[in-house]
Amino acid sequence: MAAMPVAFPTVALIGKYKTPEIAGPVMKLARFLEERGVKVLLDRLTAAHIKDCPYGVLLLEELGREADLAIVIGGDGTMLNIARTFAPYDVALVGVNQGRLGFLTDISLETMFETMTSILEGHFVTEERMLLQSEVWSGSNGNGGSTAQECVFDVLAFNDVVVAKGFRGGMVEIEVQIDGQFIYNQRSDGLIVATPTGSTAYALSSGGPIVHPALSVMALVPVSPHTLSNRPIIVSGDSTVEIVVRSADDPRAHFDSHSHFDLREGDRVIVRRYSHKIKLLHPVGHSYYAMLREKLHWNRD
Amino acid sequence: MAAMPVAFPTVALIGKYKTPEIAGPVMKLARFLEERGVKVLLDRLTAAHIKDCPYGVLLLEELGREADLAIVIGGDGTMLNIARTFAPYDVALVGVNQGRLGFLTDISLETMFETMTSILEGHFVTEERMLLQSEVWSGSNGNGGSTAQECVFDVLAFNDVVVAKGFRGGMVEIEVQIDGQFIYNQRSDGLIVATPTGSTAYALSSGGPIVHPALSVMALVPVSPHTLSNRPIIVSGDSTVEIVVRSADDPRAHFDSHSHFDLREGDRVIVRRYSHKIKLLHPVGHSYYAMLREKLHWNRD
Amino acid sequence: MAAMPVAFPTVALIGKYKTPEIAGPVMKLARFLEERGVKVLLDRLTAAHIKDCPYGVLLLEELGREADLAIVIGGDGTMLNIARTFAPYDVALVGVNQGRLGFLTDISLETMFETMTSILEGHFVTEERMLLQSEVWSGSNGNGGSTAQECVFDVLAFNDVVVAKGFRGGMVEIEVQIDGQFIYNQRSDGLIVATPTGSTAYALSSGGPIVHPALSVMALVPVSPHTLSNRPIIVSGDSTVEIVVRSADDPRAHFDSHSHFDLREGDRVIVRRYSHKIKLLHPVGHSYYAMLREKLHWNRD
Amino acid sequence: MAAMPVAFPTVALIGKYKTPEIAGPVMKLARFLEERGVKVLLDRLTAAHIKDCPYGVLLLEELGREADLAIVIGGDGTMLNIARTFAPYDVALVGVNQGRLGFLTDISLETMFETMTSILEGHFVTEERMLLQSEVWSGSNGNGGSTAQECVFDVLAFNDVVVAKGFRGGMVEIEVQIDGQFIYNQRSDGLIVATPTGSTAYALSSGGPIVHPALSVMALVPVSPHTLSNRPIIVSGDSTVEIVVRSADDPRAHFDSHSHFDLREGDRVIVRRYSHKIKLLHPVGHSYYAMLREKLHWNRD
Repeated sequence: MAAMPVAFPTVALIGKYKTPEIAGPVMKLARFLEERGVKVLLDRLTAAHIKDCPYGVLLLEELGREADLAIVIGGDGTMLNIARTFAPYDVALVGVNQGRLGFLTDISLETMFETMTSILEGHFVTEERMLLQSEVWSGSNGNGGSTAQECVFDVLAFNDVVVAKGFRGGMVEIEVQIDGQFIYNQRSDGLIVATPTGSTAYALSSGGPIVHPALSVMALVPVSPHTLSNRPIIVSGDSTVEIVVRSADDPRAHFDSHSHFDLREGDRVIVRRYSHKIKLLHPVGHSYYAMLREKLHWNRD
Repeated sequence: MAAMPVAFPTVALIGKYKTPEIAGPVMKLARFLEERGVKVLLDRLTAAHIKDCPYGVLLLEELGREADLAIVIGGDGTMLNIARTFAPYDVALVGVNQGRLGFLTDISLETMFETMTSILEGHFVTEERMLLQSEVWSGSNGNGGSTAQECVFDVLAFNDVVVAKGFRGGMVEIEVQIDGQFIYNQRSDGLIVATPTGSTAYALSSGGPIVHPALSVMALVPVSPHTLSNRPIIVSGDSTVEIVVRSADDPRAHFDSHSHFDLREGDRVIVRRYSHKIKLLHPVGHSYYAMLREKLHWNRD
Repeated sequence: MAAMPVAFPTVALIGKYKTPEIAGPVMKLARFLEERGVKVLLDRLTAAHIKDCPYGVLLLEELGREADLAIVIGGDGTMLNIARTFAPYDVALVGVNQGRLGFLTDISLETMFETMTSILEGHFVTEERMLLQSEVWSGSNGNGGSTAQECVFDVLAFNDVVVAKGFRGGMVEIEVQIDGQFIYNQRSDGLIVATPTGSTAYALSSGGPIVHPALSVMALVPVSPHTLSNRPIIVSGDSTVEIVVRSADDPRAHFDSHSHFDLREGDRVIVRRYSHKIKLLHPVGHSYYAMLREKLHWNRD
Repeated sequence: MAAMPVAFPTVALIGKYKTPEIAGPVMKLARFLEERGVKVLLDRLTAAHIKDCPYGVLLLEELGREADLAIVIGGDGTMLNIARTFAPYDVALVGVNQGRLGFLTDISLETMFETMTSILEGHFVTEERMLLQSEVWSGSNGNGGSTAQECVFDVLAFNDVVVAKGFRGGMVEIEVQIDGQFIYNQRSDGLIVATPTGSTAYALSSGGPIVHPALSVMALVPVSPHTLSNRPIIVSGDSTVEIVVRSADDPRAHFDSHSHFDLREGDRVIVRRYSHKIKLLHPVGHSYYAMLREKLHWNRD
């Protein structure tokens, strides 16, 4: 058949890692796309499960530069990883879930072809979501000041940046500043700085509110704070949050529960909005609130 | 002395109602302003406590049209009332508290003259805060639809709009929609729709987060919801929230705990951001977070 | 057939009020019991829906004195009412639910005959649950003292006693004493004093813990307290809780959301454990925790 | 002067460890007691700071056997440690705090002599508090069963036993059983099993209720649970709580934040009430609720 012009000429397919059985759905989707005139590319780890892969195979960063659209087949964890990696390239993302639908992977294998047909025809809803860019500054100068510190870690997070107590289980004591203003010294299990996307993850378990994903705000959510009035705070996405480690046995910063960095007293974790946004595509009619109802068991009784 | 040009040529003074002892500070402040070449105006109820008042006396709405700046002497409750009334007129507001400083009235009687001197010289920080505009639509059309409903109440709120159970104490059952999308049916003591300003009032007591006052968002905070996963939600200030009463003995809508409206099954309470903002003036160096620390007893231990 | 000796010779049947369709299941159960040699009695309101009722019909209080066992067919609300009424008579209770199983009515219509067969044969689990006995003391003596107060209301509660704000929506200010000791002055929407049974009702929605039903304790759960550290408190079932109304527009005491009493400033609501307990029978193998899992949607994901 | 008979003939003094400056108050108190005919004993670590110590010096366990009363000078942390060690010996305990009064150390250095005079004369209030006895069972048998497990750790806790996620920061997945009944599988940062004493410590920060210290109950408080309805549960002090590690990177059990044990998948942590109780002495007029008011900043506004 004569391929019609499609909204996304080059599409990258990425499957969940360490999951050989993902090869089946990936190849079916690849053929489906190819038949519609789409140039299909695969990432290296996904292609490793596919024998005699007939499609172009690239590194993730290369896919980011080449593809107009990336389809992630896996769960929300896979999507978080791909979204962080692709964030600098402004590639549109679509999430297909093998199992129970996720917050970010809201298309099922069953409806995948139908949805992709619509998307290729240009029928979809685009949603932009903010990420966090975080730096760790470290280095003592002998008198407690921070002038001699240097940036020792730099990473993106799509869900959250968490400064937490370490293995020995005592509390972490941190000083929090926003835009250079002192907020408080806090003793707690940790402090979560969450994006709206992350507001339904760890932050929600720790008492934070649900934040609509289109907002440009950050949620500061303390985990088991010693002071009961240390409640979640919503601040502007334009703000810079700075967390200084004041005392702890072995504190650690976590980024999307994916990477981490061991902190020392005096280290500073800086969190701000990343300059690029994630562009998620959804089927027409997609409803964030419908997904919340489903995931949070609203209106079951 | 030759009066210097001042930043606010006409200033309205408003004291806490039903508080005759406010007359002393009001008159002191009036004379202080007059000496600096300011035209002083008083509201009618404040002037009622002052014998042979030498200043112009106007209705609140007239003050809103005439004054460049309004100084409210009282507590946060007084400021809420004045702010709502002055909202359409874009008058700048300053809050002086007789007693313990409030969230909105953060200048003490003791520092009043010093602060006002700076403000008249143009040294101040301006903070803009959103309000809510709320309507109640009522009227049955015999088949449960809402086509025949009409707007029966229209009011501004600076802190919050609350749809709550009534006197008999049963739960209220409401349906919530945001921008026309169905969110959930909720059974609870009530639902608070709070501005950032209101986030530190009733919403905070009910488990909501603290929201920075410069943000344009609304916090939907359920009070004692039957479903435990009905958590606070932060939505855009551009959204329209619609609450439909599905069932209750005698539900009621409250606006800033100041006015209320008795609801019937099928009535709809609509909440959106008001087109004007409140302009609060603070002394240079004012810190919202310093006030939070003070009011919430952070860092006392 | 020759009736075998049964564990409960006289059984009262009580159906949900204002529910004519309950007559069917009630009559089926009555015949089932009669065939097994049980003397069946009905309460007056239940019998009103049954034409030519062939069984003894008595007032609830008379049933309390006559019956060895009462079977309640309805929901948890019906069971709460019957339990309070039967509390002084130590009648065993069984709850059958027409619809979705409740915390107290954990037998379905489908398994009703099977379960009753076992129970009549003496195979069941007995669970004893505490109730609250509450008094309202009122009457001013001109100087704020309480010496001239008298008891103006006296009632039992199976779930909770709540002292709450009234219709105008302001906070209620109360003073709480336990065993004569001052605890605090609290400003809030209200204070719930819950039994373990009531801990999964209104108290849970308001942030209280789940309390195992066999414990003899009371949970004091504030609703939207102004002071964020006013957290739920668990006190001994041997304690006497006293709530004094310090200030409110129109406060009210609620008892099981079933009865209420309008309070005035200075009134005291006294809550203590009732001298009798409720005796609930369950099928062998009944698990409180299994019911919690079901009702609270644990382990669904 | 002729020493009067005292209520406690032999008194042990224990000071905060690694705190040389505690030697001064300890020696003052020792001389004070000696003058009143009391036999004074010191623990080895405390005596290490005292030159030419004229009093008997024993190991803690020996003190437990010899002393009628132990006076702990330090903070709540010191008291927790001493209480655990002395628990088997039923020695009465008094806590003196150098700084800000604690929940367990409620006598100040300033009032120490006055209070001790009263206590020696037999004027005091005795409060008994439960402890937890916890065991870790480990060892695989190749098929996931627990028959081949053996007890590898056995310890007392006065505040709490916590099964928590480890250093890598992922959630811990546990199965909870109470008295052999399955409660739920829980994914969270951890689960706290707290005594009433521990209810105002870590458990309170994590959303648990305050539990009156005289009660014999345990509070199960999840920390940041994935399922929002996994709320705190109050169970009988007669119950046995069993926590089975189902999955985690590197889970750990913590006991009073004092000792810990690294867990493996399949390990079981068993928690039950310890057979002995802690006997705390307080000055006449002591009020638990007054201390709560002070520590939780109730009624400050």
